[in-house]
Amino acid sequence: MPLLSGIKTEENDIKDLQVITAGGGFVGLAQINTSIGDLKNNALKIAKYINYAETINLDMVIFPELALIGYPVYDLIERHPFIVDENIKWLKELAGITQKTAAIVGFIEPREKFAEGKRYYNSVAILRNGKIEGIVRKSLLPNYSEFNDYRYIEPSPVVGIQPADTLCHFSADNVSKSEIIYALNSIKYGITICEDLWNNKDFFEKPMYAKDPITELKNAGAEVIINCSASPTRARKEQLKHNMLAFTAFSQKLPIVYVNQVGAVDNISFDGASRGVNKYGDIFARAKSFDEDFIIVNPLKSEGEIEPITDGLEKSLNEQKVFTLEYESDLARTYKTIIQGIRDYFNKCGLKRAVLGLSGGLDSSVCAVLLADALGKENVFGISMPSKLTSSESKSDAQKLANNLGINFTEISIKPMVDTTEVCLNDLFKKIEKKWADRYSNSFTPDNIQARSRAMYLWGISNEFPSCIPIATSDKSELYMGYATVNGDMSGGFAPIADVPKTKLFAFARWLNLNRTSKNAIPKSVIEKKPGAELAIDPKTGKTLNAEDALMPYEFLDEVIWRIENKNESYKDLVGTEFVYENKCYVSRQQKVEWLNKFYDRMSKALYKWAILPPSIIVESRSINKADYTQPITSGKINYKGYSIARIRQILSQANL
Amino acid sequence: MPLLSGIKTEENDIKDLQVITAGGGFVGLAQINTSIGDLKNNALKIAKYINYAETINLDMVIFPELALIGYPVYDLIERHPFIVDENIKWLKELAGITQKTAAIVGFIEPREKFAEGKRYYNSVAILRNGKIEGIVRKSLLPNYSEFNDYRYIEPSPVVGIQPADTLCHFSADNVSKSEIIYALNSIKYGITICEDLWNNKDFFEKPMYAKDPITELKNAGAEVIINCSASPTRARKEQLKHNMLAFTAFSQKLPIVYVNQVGAVDNISFDGASRGVNKYGDIFARAKSFDEDFIIVNPLKSEGEIEPITDGLEKSLNEQKVFTLEYESDLARTYKTIIQGIRDYFNKCGLKRAVLGLSGGLDSSVCAVLLADALGKENVFGISMPSKLTSSESKSDAQKLANNLGINFTEISIKPMVDTTEVCLNDLFKKIEKKWADRYSNSFTPDNIQARSRAMYLWGISNEFPSCIPIATSDKSELYMGYATVNGDMSGGFAPIADVPKTKLFAFARWLNLNRTSKNAIPKSVIEKKPGAELAIDPKTGKTLNAEDALMPYEFLDEVIWRIENKNESYKDLVGTEFVYENKCYVSRQQKVEWLNKFYDRMSKALYKWAILPPSIIVESRSINKADYTQPITSGKINYKGYSIARIRQILSQANL
Repeated sequence: MPLLSGIKTEENDIKDLQVITAGGGFVGLAQINTSIGDLKNNALKIAKYINYAETINLDMVIFPELALIGYPVYDLIERHPFIVDENIKWLKELAGITQKTAAIVGFIEPREKFAEGKRYYNSVAILRNGKIEGIVRKSLLPNYSEFNDYRYIEPSPVVGIQPADTLCHFSADNVSKSEIIYALNSIKYGITICEDLWNNKDFFEKPMYAKDPITELKNAGAEVIINCSASPTRARKEQLKHNMLAFTAFSQKLPIVYVNQVGAVDNISFDGASRGVNKYGDIFARAKSFDEDFIIVNPLKSEGEIEPITDGLEKSLNEQKVFTLEYESDLARTYKTIIQGIRDYFNKCGLKRAVLGLSGGLDSSVCAVLLADALGKENVFGISMPSKLTSSESKSDAQKLANNLGINFTEISIKPMVDTTEVCLNDLFKKIEKKWADRYSNSFTPDNIQARSRAMYLWGISNEFPSCIPIATSDKSELYMGYATVNGDMSGGFAPIADVPKTKLFAFARWLNLNRTSKNAIPKSVIEKKPGAELAIDPKTGKTLNAEDALMPYEFLDEVIWRIENKNESYKDLVGTEFVYENKCYVSRQQKVEWLNKFYDRMSKALYKWAILPPSIIVESRSINKADYTQPITSGKINYKGYSIARIRQILSQANL
Repeated sequence: MPLLSGIKTEENDIKDLQVITAGGGFVGLAQINTSIGDLKNNALKIAKYINYAETINLDMVIFPELALIGYPVYDLIERHPFIVDENIKWLKELAGITQKTAAIVGFIEPREKFAEGKRYYNSVAILRNGKIEGIVRKSLLPNYSEFNDYRYIEPSPVVGIQPADTLCHFSADNVSKSEIIYALNSIKYGITICEDLWNNKDFFEKPMYAKDPITELKNAGAEVIINCSASPTRARKEQLKHNMLAFTAFSQKLPIVYVNQVGAVDNISFDGASRGVNKYGDIFARAKSFDEDFIIVNPLKSEGEIEPITDGLEKSLNEQKVFTLEYESDLARTYKTIIQGIRDYFNKCGLKRAVLGLSGGLDSSVCAVLLADALGKENVFGISMPSKLTSSESKSDAQKLANNLGINFTEISIKPMVDTTEVCLNDLFKKIEKKWADRYSNSFTPDNIQARSRAMYLWGISNEFPSCIPIATSDKSELYMGYATVNGDMSGGFAPIADVPKTKLFAFARWLNLNRTSKNAIPKSVIEKKPGAELAIDPKTGKTLNAEDALMPYEFLDEVIWRIENKNESYKDLVGTEFVYENKCYVSRQQKVEWLNKFYDRMSKALYKWAILPPSIIVESRSINKADYTQPITSGKINYKGYSIARIRQILSQANL
């Protein structure tokens, strides 16, 4: 592959770049981080790159999907439609600043005279010579996982470019018969938006849509495919994207220029890594991952600069990953996904500081590292809040971690609050039990008082100091099991590791210790000890209760979760499958069934907690994040074991009013 | 309209009914309340009505949309597809119990050999003579507000009935050319599912879809339209439904038999009120609202029994409602919607009891009434938790209310907890401010400590007593303004009035006092005093801070909310509109702009709170319930005032890298 190091924008001054681009055929990929609805700042960013691209004589500068208004807009455009009118105003003015360089800018287009269907198109405009030269509208609308395009967006009845005068007035009735290809300086571009590229019928076993825009554009004479995208990162997504782009470019014999959004929007993290793939399916240019970037490529000549992809991912690009509890190749991506998620949530919400409880355990330790790296150590306060059950080792681990990270740290006992609350609650319970006689003889109340007293401290700080929120440190495995206290450890302004399973957290902690500039921030004992919330005494052992004893071994639990999320296995499938854990340790069938029963029982009761989980970042290929997965809370009576035909007949035979 | 009182199932024994139905042409509308994924209990309910319908010689018995698996299933079928296989097993066994009476049963149908598109159809099967006689699949898939059908459901390429052997194997390639009408005992039925009925192109100004299934069925010879529905209730929905059904039946000259689901699923309440409308557009039969029911109708003879609709709604059936702050006609529906919402949430989650703080204010008083009526007074515990700011009037109002309702009641001071927490927090703050020097001189911390101490009590009770959850008493107006404490009053297992604006709550409280069997449960002073959280002292007056002074007049606030939600008005529209409140009181332009600025500012910061709101029931025509409306939390920097063209040009003129 030809590498043109001279193309690197940071290492060349404008005059060098002007020499390089003089031959023509160069386009700029403006991989920007936008804020939803923040038209002023988004437009300003777009305008800067338009001016820059003009200065260095690029033929074209390309922005991500919906660059002007941000992606995803969710229901904002329905409730506050003025924002759509505003985005048209900004679009027209952006057209006004263009000259010879064409700018491809994404925006929401109202359907002012629509006869039927949704109210908007998801469009890009081609801006050049001070005006709008044409408009392309998205044909394929994803509506699964984190995507909800079809709520307000009408699929375009036609692929490729349509005349500028259709702006806001386009419909199936006025499709132009003229050219759908955008020709610029003798090169023919087929312009598409995100999902339009994701329907190759030979690549996907079960394509989602009937139409394939890329084939249509190829048939209409496109020499280069442009794709304006907002494609989120999650586990295994880079593998899929890499393989899909290579396959499509090679099978269509067409170079593809893919410009992806970067930055996080609430729960969704976009990784950038915009790229050019030549007609042989080889990558000839790639922008940075998880950072804004501007790269210049010549798609017909395969010229560009390749930034390395996130560490580890290259290795797995052609892998069909199976569950092994080995997460090594994905940890750098996990790190960057969460760091960007925290940083953008804070920046876009006008927040600056985080406060979290440091228990000396794995979850809070990993969270502290991530927060220090995302926000700066001076903006993080770790609070050790020991109770009578907190071991001296936990206390010293919390202190050591904070020292290693250089974050702010203090220790304060929860004893006065816990003692007072216990007395008050016991007074109250005595009044209640006069009416409700079935008080539990053994409850979680004392455990929860501890967790809630800690949250009381943390929320107090966030009320008392500017731009500060508390952090919920719950991990994915424990959330699946409802092993988290409402208004306690699962409460916070943000939940950084809510989509990271516990077994991955162990690997992640080791990876952080090895790969951060400052090594071994997390004390070894934090990683080596068995996780336990230190909230209660195990009556069997007299020691603090171990989380795995309360639940089941994390290796087993995480494999159940992985199999359900990724392979859609049922209770019966799980009983019949040999787990990695079973290969390692002897597990009796009775024990396995007991764990599985406990899993489904706890999961059914945890659905409520999933619904009120604070904002968190989607990391894995599937999640319980409510922007990604919802299940009715009232579906708790599902029998996950299913029924035999004989049993069904028996039940139905008793059906009488 | 011919009323056939003999048709009333409750007043006639089976022999009477057999005489009535002997002439043929009678169908049963089985308006059932299902649980999502609870196949056993749903199927058992269906089987009972199938057997009953057979006994009384009905031609047909019709169930709501997706009756077997429940509606909506959300993402359950994606993550746990075994449940779909199970629903096919149950469907086949239900077919096995049918005889002469046809049963129309909704289910999720997998597309086992799909070439492209989604994995499932939303279908109904016609079961008769021990087998499946045919299948109808939903063509129009709603994907707005609380609807998400298109996430997993493929729209049917064809309207009407298809052969039984297409079960699980249907696609656009094997559409049968034969009859799409289901003929039974010489009557021709056109069978449809929910949204299929909601696209009359003369009724809807902007129809959502190109296709109109009803017209197709009419053209194919249908004499009666059957519609299996799951249509939620919300403000103004009954008006729309009534008018749409009457218009469609009249304009198509076809009777319509509409069978609606009843019961609540998490946030969504379905009101039943299944009905028959004759070809003149007149209702000839209607089942109960908000209750399971079974009614018998003869659609060609317009025979049936009309249950009265929810009080008040008849009056408004042809109204185009404008904002008047008069809610009278909607209060009975609001009551039933919330009561059903609470009851079904509790029942379907296996809960029994609720505990709530009684402040003597409007919100908690209304919640207490609703809980007592929904769960039984013995299952409700009201706790008065006064602080030093609580007036003696508030305390005595709380006590009076509890006495009037007969719910359990006790009083307990929060003083020890608040005092201890304040001391502990102040200790902590002194440690924090050594590093973060910009501590607020005036914070909400003391207010929030009170709210959170109360939540500590309530969650403690729910941990200590079986099947009990605390109730979040926040109302819609205050949630819009973020005037609710996280882990405090907005925390709970359920939030009954989160979609009821404050001005409506006043009307609602009066209505409750007049319309419940036991009158005047809510003390007059609760309704007459100005709302205030009694959490802080107003420095201006030295009295406890009044909520309207902290926010703005509720009448103004609620009109802003109503105009944005129902008319999609922008900041500029609102400035330019004369409010009802302005008609009543003089409001300077400066004051109005100040309130509007405060509104948008507080709303932008409240988005986080909307995202973690406990389950609540959708009541109004639009809501902030996250099952209904989502807006990125990180969209807080939107400028709702918009920009002038001149300002846009000025901003863009400064765009340089």
